[in-house]
Amino acid sequence: MTHYPVTPRNRAKRVHERARYDHDTVHAVLDAGLMCHIAYVIDGQPYCTPTIHWRDGTRLYWHGSSASRMLRAQKGGVPVCVTVTHLDGLVMARSAFNHSANYRSAMCFGLAEIIEDAAEKTRALEALTDRFYPGRRAELRPMTAQEVKATSVIGMTITEASAKVRAHGVGDDAEDGHLPVWAGVIPVATMIGAAQPSALMPETPLAPHLQRFAEGRRLDEVMLETQAIYDAEGRA
Amino acid sequence: MTHYPVTPRNRAKRVHERARYDHDTVHAVLDAGLMCHIAYVIDGQPYCTPTIHWRDGTRLYWHGSSASRMLRAQKGGVPVCVTVTHLDGLVMARSAFNHSANYRSAMCFGLAEIIEDAAEKTRALEALTDRFYPGRRAELRPMTAQEVKATSVIGMTITEASAKVRAHGVGDDAEDGHLPVWAGVIPVATMIGAAQPSALMPETPLAPHLQRFAEGRRLDEVMLETQAIYDAEGRA
Repeated sequence: MTHYPVTPRNRAKRVHERARYDHDTVHAVLDAGLMCHIAYVIDGQPYCTPTIHWRDGTRLYWHGSSASRMLRAQKGGVPVCVTVTHLDGLVMARSAFNHSANYRSAMCFGLAEIIEDAAEKTRALEALTDRFYPGRRAELRPMTAQEVKATSVIGMTITEASAKVRAHGVGDDAEDGHLPVWAGVIPVATMIGAAQPSALMPETPLAPHLQRFAEGRRLDEVMLETQAIYDAEGRA
Repeated sequence: MTHYPVTPRNRAKRVHERARYDHDTVHAVLDAGLMCHIAYVIDGQPYCTPTIHWRDGTRLYWHGSSASRMLRAQKGGVPVCVTVTHLDGLVMARSAFNHSANYRSAMCFGLAEIIEDAAEKTRALEALTDRFYPGRRAELRPMTAQEVKATSVIGMTITEASAKVRAHGVGDDAEDGHLPVWAGVIPVATMIGAAQPSALMPETPLAPHLQRFAEGRRLDEVMLETQAIYDAEGRA
């Protein structure tokens, strides 16, 4: 198993037993989500921006961020922390103190840089569509040069990362076990609903490649499927 | 309507038309979620930590963060940015460029401080249970002094905030409208699953106050209900 290096920056400070540093665990958390939160600093002030991310190997990408102006001004990259979190359950214990949550999270550190080269930027934007919606780009018109120009794409090689996973039942104190209080886990998951076709659309059927986004499926499972296809097929 | 002040820190830099600064919109995004992401800075390095948050008026609270040591060392508070995001849908357009996501997000700025006073800390921890699970604290044993001591609670008065909401259909370019590509919105939502009772539990029925966490309900709707009860009843 390949691991990210453990440094003072990514070493878990709390609940060490939940921490993992191997690529497989970290990437599975990243890949299961569409959205990340990115922390960055401007003049000492931290910002936390939500955005859509995509991964190619140990590189993360995102686009159009309010940090773009700052990034453009600083060659060589600026330090950021990219975090993806999935809430999986509410853990209800017999004491307030032992209430908890089941979750998966990954924190990734690196230097974020604007991708200025048009060819590299085009490839990164194509990867975005290919990674989320494999097969879709074949039915779309090509991006125009103006569209590529109008989008900021930011890339970051992950230098350190850690994942934390809590995925078990209630951790009651032994002496609380007899208390007549309901205890257990209330699971939660991000689920896909019924597709809502555009009102302006002619009678266009849902393309086969979109049928995996079926009502009632878990979004994280679909996202892992599409990443696996992207990893296997690579970029067009 | 009461608004948060708009400053260079929280003024929307992009897609201005999606930005809102009023308390109602910002608080509705915060309250609909259990989890936030907190950006903070240690020695110039940004960190983005996921955690559970709760709100009382214009104060946000969270507990047990790896920033605790830093916070304890710095009286007067440290600048943080607390962001809550809900992914509501995948927006599939006829061009790669116009693909988007429906979402609700709120970014809140302020100075975070460790709550050292034991009475204030106890009240904040009681508020956590009351806000998430109204009615539950009455059936739990009181927290012990040791439990209160073992928990770091961090408080922050929101000084600036903004919310962004995208909640509409596809924004195709007019000239792409004829393309025979499926376009529309694939909605997603965080849903509650079937409660999993603790294996160690005697035949304890689900308390009436937990029945709102019913299988098949949207978590964000339940969270807004429980916050409304907390807002109406205040702290015990």
